[in-house]
Amino acid sequence: MVRLDEIVARFGGDLVGDGSIAVRGIATLETAGADQLSFLSNPKYQGQLGATSAAAVILAPEATAACPVAAIVTPQPYLYYARVAQWLNPPPRPAAGIHPSAVVETEVPASVSVGPNVWIGAGAGIGENTVIGAGCAIGPGAEIGGDSLLHPNVTVAAGCRIGARAIIHSGAVIGADGFGFARDRDGSWVKIPQTGRVVVGDDVEIGANTTIDRGALADTVIGDGVKLDNQIQIAHNVQIGARTIMAGCAAIAGSTRVGAGCAIGGAANIIGHLEIADGVQVSAGTFVAKSITRPGVFTGTVPFMSHEEWLKNFARLRHLDAMADKIRALEQRLAELEKRT
Amino acid sequence: MVRLDEIVARFGGDLVGDGSIAVRGIATLETAGADQLSFLSNPKYQGQLGATSAAAVILAPEATAACPVAAIVTPQPYLYYARVAQWLNPPPRPAAGIHPSAVVETEVPASVSVGPNVWIGAGAGIGENTVIGAGCAIGPGAEIGGDSLLHPNVTVAAGCRIGARAIIHSGAVIGADGFGFARDRDGSWVKIPQTGRVVVGDDVEIGANTTIDRGALADTVIGDGVKLDNQIQIAHNVQIGARTIMAGCAAIAGSTRVGAGCAIGGAANIIGHLEIADGVQVSAGTFVAKSITRPGVFTGTVPFMSHEEWLKNFARLRHLDAMADKIRALEQRLAELEKRT
Amino acid sequence: MVRLDEIVARFGGDLVGDGSIAVRGIATLETAGADQLSFLSNPKYQGQLGATSAAAVILAPEATAACPVAAIVTPQPYLYYARVAQWLNPPPRPAAGIHPSAVVETEVPASVSVGPNVWIGAGAGIGENTVIGAGCAIGPGAEIGGDSLLHPNVTVAAGCRIGARAIIHSGAVIGADGFGFARDRDGSWVKIPQTGRVVVGDDVEIGANTTIDRGALADTVIGDGVKLDNQIQIAHNVQIGARTIMAGCAAIAGSTRVGAGCAIGGAANIIGHLEIADGVQVSAGTFVAKSITRPGVFTGTVPFMSHEEWLKNFARLRHLDAMADKIRALEQRLAELEKRT
Repeated sequence: MVRLDEIVARFGGDLVGDGSIAVRGIATLETAGADQLSFLSNPKYQGQLGATSAAAVILAPEATAACPVAAIVTPQPYLYYARVAQWLNPPPRPAAGIHPSAVVETEVPASVSVGPNVWIGAGAGIGENTVIGAGCAIGPGAEIGGDSLLHPNVTVAAGCRIGARAIIHSGAVIGADGFGFARDRDGSWVKIPQTGRVVVGDDVEIGANTTIDRGALADTVIGDGVKLDNQIQIAHNVQIGARTIMAGCAAIAGSTRVGAGCAIGGAANIIGHLEIADGVQVSAGTFVAKSITRPGVFTGTVPFMSHEEWLKNFARLRHLDAMADKIRALEQRLAELEKRT
Repeated sequence: MVRLDEIVARFGGDLVGDGSIAVRGIATLETAGADQLSFLSNPKYQGQLGATSAAAVILAPEATAACPVAAIVTPQPYLYYARVAQWLNPPPRPAAGIHPSAVVETEVPASVSVGPNVWIGAGAGIGENTVIGAGCAIGPGAEIGGDSLLHPNVTVAAGCRIGARAIIHSGAVIGADGFGFARDRDGSWVKIPQTGRVVVGDDVEIGANTTIDRGALADTVIGDGVKLDNQIQIAHNVQIGARTIMAGCAAIAGSTRVGAGCAIGGAANIIGHLEIADGVQVSAGTFVAKSITRPGVFTGTVPFMSHEEWLKNFARLRHLDAMADKIRALEQRLAELEKRT
Repeated sequence: MVRLDEIVARFGGDLVGDGSIAVRGIATLETAGADQLSFLSNPKYQGQLGATSAAAVILAPEATAACPVAAIVTPQPYLYYARVAQWLNPPPRPAAGIHPSAVVETEVPASVSVGPNVWIGAGAGIGENTVIGAGCAIGPGAEIGGDSLLHPNVTVAAGCRIGARAIIHSGAVIGADGFGFARDRDGSWVKIPQTGRVVVGDDVEIGANTTIDRGALADTVIGDGVKLDNQIQIAHNVQIGARTIMAGCAAIAGSTRVGAGCAIGGAANIIGHLEIADGVQVSAGTFVAKSITRPGVFTGTVPFMSHEEWLKNFARLRHLDAMADKIRALEQRLAELEKRT
């Protein structure tokens, strides 16, 4: 249990109400009980404020009047909630030390926790306080920064580098070979050795079953503070700028450079060899086949409809060019007629 | 070998022909040998019936006349085939017991089979007769129901719950953190702790490399009898109703609620915070960006064509609005002219 | 260090310059140092040739004149580069033998390397010189050909067959159950046992977290020399012809047959039960819902645009059919008018 005045002393904000109220955790406006803190940031949930049973609510100044319970007032309630939630929910830390079933072919600091059935190859380096979950495989010469957390069954291939404070979720594969082949005269494919690395900055989170391939000659580079959701595919030699965020199932093909501070929506695809400027937002489901040279929101999805409507409308897509021709012909005939009459 | 009359005694249906005929397994009409059972359900394969070498065929009443061999007649031949095939092909069950290489930090029933190099964390619960394949990682406090089968290299994170009779394929990750961040003033991202669980009902199948994230505050919930194919992404706080089925590579973004008895096609994407009614069918490849409030089939894919045709037609997509304007202008000019002449 | 005349003696091509020059590796034109070899194949990088610091450059005859340093001249510089790079960068080979932490329930040749925490089931067969990386799970009765390399954490299910010289990247799952269910009267789903195998030819590469499902009755078949990138989904009973190449996140639904020598772009989707001819190229992001009976390039993506433009244009997609009707009405009215005047 922590008191509201403790929270405000630590994180700032204005307290409205009794600072001695204590809370044991955070919940939504709808579900919070009398010993829980809640928050209001999305205006969609404003209607739930009046009926909340929370002990107190983190909210913006303009919502204070409508709050029936104690409040912590801050211009950015969602950010404030994130900070308090982190403080109240420290990630569980397994004890330091190497599990007897792990195979560790290198030296690791005493503060590191290496879980059951892990393999860490020769020459790999693991930073202080880092946790390597059960079943992870860390290849020879790979480096993982300090204070990082690798969930179970992560693979980091030989020679790749991950910065400090990384969070990598289960099933992620960092440093598989990029997809590069030269076509031989008989149509068979000759593999291009992928001799680059993956180099990941500090404070990066990588989602479950996400794959980041090593570079062909140069490295694949993920900037500081990048956040990648699940099942993202990053091809060889891609570069992603600092603090860019990508939602689930997005993919970036080879050698494309994505700027800093971008937001790539879920299932968006960016083809290879492009440049995406800083601050670009790509909407979910959009297929990007050209470079984007200025910030802004870019979209290219198709609307869905009932299957019957779709059958009628989308058949026309094969004839758009013919429709445009017909319009032009009509314009000419009509102009001709207008001249005459 | 089982006799046809044994099959009919067990599963019903009408036997046409000699009940003492014995079969050793099931094959397609085209490939079945004289000691195999076959089935006809898709009318596309009707033409293969006359030439089949099968010992007997499971089929619908209207196909009986054309069948050159013994037949088991039932209104639902595909369902009948499924049942017979399950009976003839019980999944291989490794012996009960804990493999000496496994690390099991909890008590499990004697009927459970725990494979090589498995990790099961403290406080986890495994139901009777469940099989945990090689290399699986089951986090602390997770629960897996009885009679379940986890194929090798599955990850179930701390505190998540899986119901009875689950089948989970290799590489699936249940309970990685949802993707939630608050943006700080300097553009960096502050992680929202994901303190909810994944709660999966009974009789659920989860495909290879599928990911289901844990909830932010509340849980992510998968209903009874749901079937998920490979490489599906289910984001945090999604709810999926009972008996909904999703094909490969489909994805559902955060907090969306999908109803019961839905069918989501392969590679379909549903964005976050939507409501999808019971009984909705989303066609493969469709991008769903609005709630769907009634059952039916919904589609939104684009036709493919030769690249040259595509270049001509799809360039027009950027000018649809201008085309509509031109049509309106033509209509006005023509009306004007019609008035005059 | 190898000398240029050694390279030419081994791989052919015409040497322009001093054959005694020695190089220690390959780099791009821009980054190569005085002891490195480079290459020019993509005309896009022609401009970098004049300023390169490389010791020598692999290039085509027409580029020779502009080359400021020694050159190896060949009609196919990219292929030549691939071969030299393979020779200079042999994949690291862990020592032969079975790691003490591995669980191997079958006999494997002495030349095989089995890494830490691997499981190989009873009756499985591993070819000479094959490397099984840490944490792999090879099911009972599976067969892996000789000279293959399975990176860490690969799963190959019971009874599946992989040919010689395979490269399989981390997280790939070969032989999970296909997705097949019959619907029962109450809306629940009855599993169809997936009793086929996955059969993979020789010289196949399979990317990280790619999934290939086993067949329902017959097998799923991947031809010789096929190259699959990361996160590809191949459903049950798919057949892929020899030397076909598929980029990341592509997916093929059940029972579709893809010909030989095809190139399937990233994130392309092909629905089930289709036939794709030999030599077909499907552009990235394209959704293929009909069989393709002749070679060629096929495309079906939508252009992206600024979100505002998109809002205007794409709303029209719901009304394409109405637009076509309006054009037809205009044509009739205009013809009528033209007759009269």
